[in-house]
Amino acid sequence: MAPAHNDSSVKNIAVLGSTGSIGRSTLAVVAAHPRRFRVKALAARQDAGTLYRQAEQHRPLVVALADEEAAARWQSRFNDLGVQCWAGPEALTAIARMDQVDTVVAAISGSAGLPAALAAVEAGKTGALANKEALVAAGPVFMEAVRRSGAPLLPVDSEHNALFQCLQGIDRRHLRRVVLTASGGPFFGRRREELRHVTPDQALRHPTWSMGAKITIDSATLMNKGLEVIEAMHLFDLSPEQIDVLIHPESIVHSLVETVDGGILAHMAEPDMRHAIQYSLSYPERWTSPVPRLDLAGVGSLNFALPDHETFPALGLAYDAARAGGTMPAVLNAANEVAVEAFLGGKAGFLDIPRIVEAVMAAHRVGPAADLDGILAADRWAREYADQLLSAQEGVPR
Amino acid sequence: MAPAHNDSSVKNIAVLGSTGSIGRSTLAVVAAHPRRFRVKALAARQDAGTLYRQAEQHRPLVVALADEEAAARWQSRFNDLGVQCWAGPEALTAIARMDQVDTVVAAISGSAGLPAALAAVEAGKTGALANKEALVAAGPVFMEAVRRSGAPLLPVDSEHNALFQCLQGIDRRHLRRVVLTASGGPFFGRRREELRHVTPDQALRHPTWSMGAKITIDSATLMNKGLEVIEAMHLFDLSPEQIDVLIHPESIVHSLVETVDGGILAHMAEPDMRHAIQYSLSYPERWTSPVPRLDLAGVGSLNFALPDHETFPALGLAYDAARAGGTMPAVLNAANEVAVEAFLGGKAGFLDIPRIVEAVMAAHRVGPAADLDGILAADRWAREYADQLLSAQEGVPR
Repeated sequence: MAPAHNDSSVKNIAVLGSTGSIGRSTLAVVAAHPRRFRVKALAARQDAGTLYRQAEQHRPLVVALADEEAAARWQSRFNDLGVQCWAGPEALTAIARMDQVDTVVAAISGSAGLPAALAAVEAGKTGALANKEALVAAGPVFMEAVRRSGAPLLPVDSEHNALFQCLQGIDRRHLRRVVLTASGGPFFGRRREELRHVTPDQALRHPTWSMGAKITIDSATLMNKGLEVIEAMHLFDLSPEQIDVLIHPESIVHSLVETVDGGILAHMAEPDMRHAIQYSLSYPERWTSPVPRLDLAGVGSLNFALPDHETFPALGLAYDAARAGGTMPAVLNAANEVAVEAFLGGKAGFLDIPRIVEAVMAAHRVGPAADLDGILAADRWAREYADQLLSAQEGVPR
Repeated sequence: MAPAHNDSSVKNIAVLGSTGSIGRSTLAVVAAHPRRFRVKALAARQDAGTLYRQAEQHRPLVVALADEEAAARWQSRFNDLGVQCWAGPEALTAIARMDQVDTVVAAISGSAGLPAALAAVEAGKTGALANKEALVAAGPVFMEAVRRSGAPLLPVDSEHNALFQCLQGIDRRHLRRVVLTASGGPFFGRRREELRHVTPDQALRHPTWSMGAKITIDSATLMNKGLEVIEAMHLFDLSPEQIDVLIHPESIVHSLVETVDGGILAHMAEPDMRHAIQYSLSYPERWTSPVPRLDLAGVGSLNFALPDHETFPALGLAYDAARAGGTMPAVLNAANEVAVEAFLGGKAGFLDIPRIVEAVMAAHRVGPAADLDGILAADRWAREYADQLLSAQEGVPR
């Protein structure tokens, strides 16, 4: 049913982080619209096996593996497929800048994905940004690059994608606030004391979204929503006071905007990342979608509640970092990455995650977020300090 | 807090049906923004006392009373106030055409409000249309007049106002369908048998909206939603197949639109007509509002269900009329007005309302809805036939 396309309407796409959850959903969207895309490049951190199967299916010009050992082991197999295999972290950046690419999906999670996402924007590529840490850590630098290049930047995070859709028909002068919805994660409704001994397995059982491990833990602590508050600030040029968070366990309403007259526009869809990914790639068009249609009568009930800041202090820490500005959001993000990894590795408890983040933030002297070097230096400092706190657990106030 | 206005931004407004529910809410919006409006004319059917108090407050140039006796009795009191008092149904039409008026709120319910609403559009006035029967009975004629005059027509019905707001940011090529929400009325969840002996008092107890008697009974039968389906067809140039209805008892989500990619935009606000009325008057601007802000966490839960067509056959009859087209929607509407009046007067049962409408529709030979005369003739025929059925109740199939 898709109309015929001439070459100029075909998107030449690179997927950074193609073996992760967002990357795989991106390739599912691409596969659903084969005449609209040519996959020019795929990049992953280390999962060479999955990357190879993706290369077999989509036949890119190039793949990249950040892990040089993995690249060395698989090089010849990719070459047999007629696909170049580049190696090392800088290969991700090289792919983001490739002349043959016009659209980059930046889906490497964590601050590891930041340089390549920034490189894509600086090179004027249409960006579909799933790497929220790029905006959290380096928001001012990133958005300045977007302004300079003039290239479209579409948010892939379902909440920001929803806000982007809601804001299409609203004059910015009429916007009062935006409301990010949060599923509440697997521990919604629990009290703080009940979370002392939860295991990574329990925290990884997200009620509505199927996502990677890092973001699933962030959902359980509400840090994910805190990162999204900072992300929304930069994407939509808002103050922290213009961004509220509402718990919505069904994850059907992906976000809302309120106008000065008290009206609210809400975006809804099935909780399936392919919806937001596809819109970020089809914009300003919309295409029929492989995502099942939302059946509101079948869902029956949509519920809303205020966040419990006592049980989930990470959200408040993110607002603190947003208000502090400068290098503080990068520090919040880096400390959180270290703490989540420690929790997943059994080296820290669930409640230690916000404790470590808070302690690292308390020890940080905010500097300006003027360039990537300064931001990455703050990021490194926060990681080292969080590691110190973890290895001497008595250093973490309990 | 409102910015200063020069004269050209002041709206010179006439309110047709100022003493009814929508009319009073309109004047509350006007009173909340005194520097944005000058009330030039007010018109009512017969409630001269209320009209007089409104004239005292808003000091229009003219008032009109459709009821000539009421006008004769109050004439001198209005004159003492320095306000002209016009009399008779044609006075409503004259007010709709007044040179001193640029914005007309058409809020006389029933087909009695049709000629004046049409006159306002033909005279190129900015129209805020609350009279849904104008579009139901005379949709093609009405919308042709809108196209010819080029004057903006804003829907005041909360559902259509919500659709209008949702559609602002959506390319029409991307629209899959619209969904009108319905509170379900006081009898949502009841079975057909339980409705045999309900009284007007019971039917008038609407759970969420405070409205006039006619529309409240229409909400109880779901005919109101059926009329709104036909209204939406004309306002937004849709086929009946592109319009769905969803029961939503809280009346918070006022309507939804679905795009071809499965995304849904929903408009929400407190169930308070001042929101839609104000937007229909402020468009394309938005102003701060006297309506309380929506507190979704306080509301807690939004529920959705499919309509029960067996218990509420009026909705299906309206779809039938929409598909039949021509004079059939006018007949549906006229028969319904007669049946509702009979129910309110104790001369028909609740279940007789759709029975009478169905019987009148079955006896009607559809003609073209080419001009107002033909439509009003079908309207008259339907009223007479419905009256006959009512006086010989054996004529109504039970």
